[in-house]
Amino acid sequence: MQNLRITLARRPVGAPTPADFAIGHAEVPEPSEGQLLLQVLYLSLDPYMRGRMSAAKSYAEPVAIGAVMEGGTVARVLKSRHPDFADGDYVLSHSGWQSYAISDGTGLRKLDPAEAPLSTALGILGMPGFTAYAGLLTIGRPKEGETVVVAAASGPVGATVGQIARLKGARAVGIAGGEAKCRFVREELGFDAVVDHRAPDFADQLQNACPEGIDVYFENVGGHVWNAVFPLLNPFARIPVCGLISQYNDATGAHAGPDRLPLVMRDVLGKSLNIRGFIQREFIDQRPDFYREMSSWIRDGKVRYREDIVDDLENAPEAFIGLLEGRNFGTLVVRLASDD
Amino acid sequence: MQNLRITLARRPVGAPTPADFAIGHAEVPEPSEGQLLLQVLYLSLDPYMRGRMSAAKSYAEPVAIGAVMEGGTVARVLKSRHPDFADGDYVLSHSGWQSYAISDGTGLRKLDPAEAPLSTALGILGMPGFTAYAGLLTIGRPKEGETVVVAAASGPVGATVGQIARLKGARAVGIAGGEAKCRFVREELGFDAVVDHRAPDFADQLQNACPEGIDVYFENVGGHVWNAVFPLLNPFARIPVCGLISQYNDATGAHAGPDRLPLVMRDVLGKSLNIRGFIQREFIDQRPDFYREMSSWIRDGKVRYREDIVDDLENAPEAFIGLLEGRNFGTLVVRLASDD
Repeated sequence: MQNLRITLARRPVGAPTPADFAIGHAEVPEPSEGQLLLQVLYLSLDPYMRGRMSAAKSYAEPVAIGAVMEGGTVARVLKSRHPDFADGDYVLSHSGWQSYAISDGTGLRKLDPAEAPLSTALGILGMPGFTAYAGLLTIGRPKEGETVVVAAASGPVGATVGQIARLKGARAVGIAGGEAKCRFVREELGFDAVVDHRAPDFADQLQNACPEGIDVYFENVGGHVWNAVFPLLNPFARIPVCGLISQYNDATGAHAGPDRLPLVMRDVLGKSLNIRGFIQREFIDQRPDFYREMSSWIRDGKVRYREDIVDDLENAPEAFIGLLEGRNFGTLVVRLASDD
Repeated sequence: MQNLRITLARRPVGAPTPADFAIGHAEVPEPSEGQLLLQVLYLSLDPYMRGRMSAAKSYAEPVAIGAVMEGGTVARVLKSRHPDFADGDYVLSHSGWQSYAISDGTGLRKLDPAEAPLSTALGILGMPGFTAYAGLLTIGRPKEGETVVVAAASGPVGATVGQIARLKGARAVGIAGGEAKCRFVREELGFDAVVDHRAPDFADQLQNACPEGIDVYFENVGGHVWNAVFPLLNPFARIPVCGLISQYNDATGAHAGPDRLPLVMRDVLGKSLNIRGFIQREFIDQRPDFYREMSSWIRDGKVRYREDIVDDLENAPEAFIGLLEGRNFGTLVVRLASDD
């Protein structure tokens, strides 16, 4: 039994390539008194990880060169020497891109596989679902009849944003890439409208889909979607910003003109816009409400989700590279081992 | 007795020139039943007026070509045919750039010249003071020990922002143009530090003045001040945006690169920044608190102000052009007639 570990080999310049990751093996570690040995069952792949691969300052420390890549995981307790956990317990952990990990119990949350599929703790009932919930309800504050627009609408955050918006009486307009994802957003998730951002007349289509303008734009992509959304923003629009996936692979930080900032600031002023970046951790006191409400919405079939499961940790780098290009379809989760 | 009126002759392209205004005379109008004839004593000149001269959409309608320029005024009731007002009453009105005006009483606020000098109703106890108060306290929310930065710090909004910030226990750093204004901000208004934005090493000076970064940037100018402020913003910084005077004369809306928006959005996300445009009208329910608190601060000498009085309405266009170039020193008010 060996611990398969994927480490950061070097900091990517632009889009990550497989050579930026190193796959290695190590001994499975032995837990000391007060520790647990965890076997990772599921690893979540999320856009924010691209930021951790860079050295730039952010709210979080970058992953060190040679260190195991960070990531949220669902794990089984293989060997507990900790009074609060028993062998066989399932936990949400932050064990990263490896098959076994030691924990002292800090930050672990026990999971009940009878309540919800374990992998949902990484998606709809996990960080992405909570990002959608807290950002939309605390910053976006959609009112009945308002229009909420979200991109990456088939992904775990976007899908949840649109469905919660509808539960609050707002109109949900999704943006997704390609016919299959658009159909899913409209037919399975029940958004009021969906627009394919790859269409040559994307901006016109978005305008047609938002005849009364946009009151909440949940920003998780940036790039050309912003350009189409921006002119449609209504006075007093709220723009929670939880991600900018289109920028994460940007190598240089230098951007050709024209300079869009003056026009953006002009409308921030002229329309009393509210642009607010956030990370879900800020809203940690809302977590209990989230678990309770979201679980009941899922149980009642009011919120749906889709997972994109990739088998075997060796495939994580390729899957992550694809995530940044929008190749995933749903919450992207790596399955390292069976959960039964 | 004639009504001197300054109207919008044409929409300026770039910086306004005297030829964009027309000075004319008309009969002094006669009030009907339910109306008042007002004699304007003071007219406030404010940066927002530049926006009303353009046809671009905003929260307010543009001034029509040939119409009297808009503006807040202090007036005396010359002839009342309205039950709520008596001849000789003083009122805050929105009579615009003219010496006499008819009102039906809507939106008028009576002023007591014994309580505060009448002109303060256009400055520290008026729209600029309230903009500072509401924007800083509702959006900026400075906490004790935090650093608040404001530009145009000798002007009516900036001066008030910094002084209120200090009353709330924050550190106030002002930005002003030229030695005289900087000295006034530091010595008369009591800011903790002040930086001259005309200095060649302005950005370095600002950094030195903010050794612990910036928690609140009250944005009322835009332009090169933003570039110096932006890298110094702390995580969770709040940026109330009430003006962008450096942009108002921008003729084209086309701006040479580089494009600053991606870097701004990167920090909005990475630092959980909050950029919030506003207009003081949004916070109208805070007006009574404002009048009460600000009056007492002025009475106790805790908040000071400076007025830049220009005599005669004919001089308003030139004074307004100077305002957009930062030539005023304090709240810019045109005195049309004596108030005694």
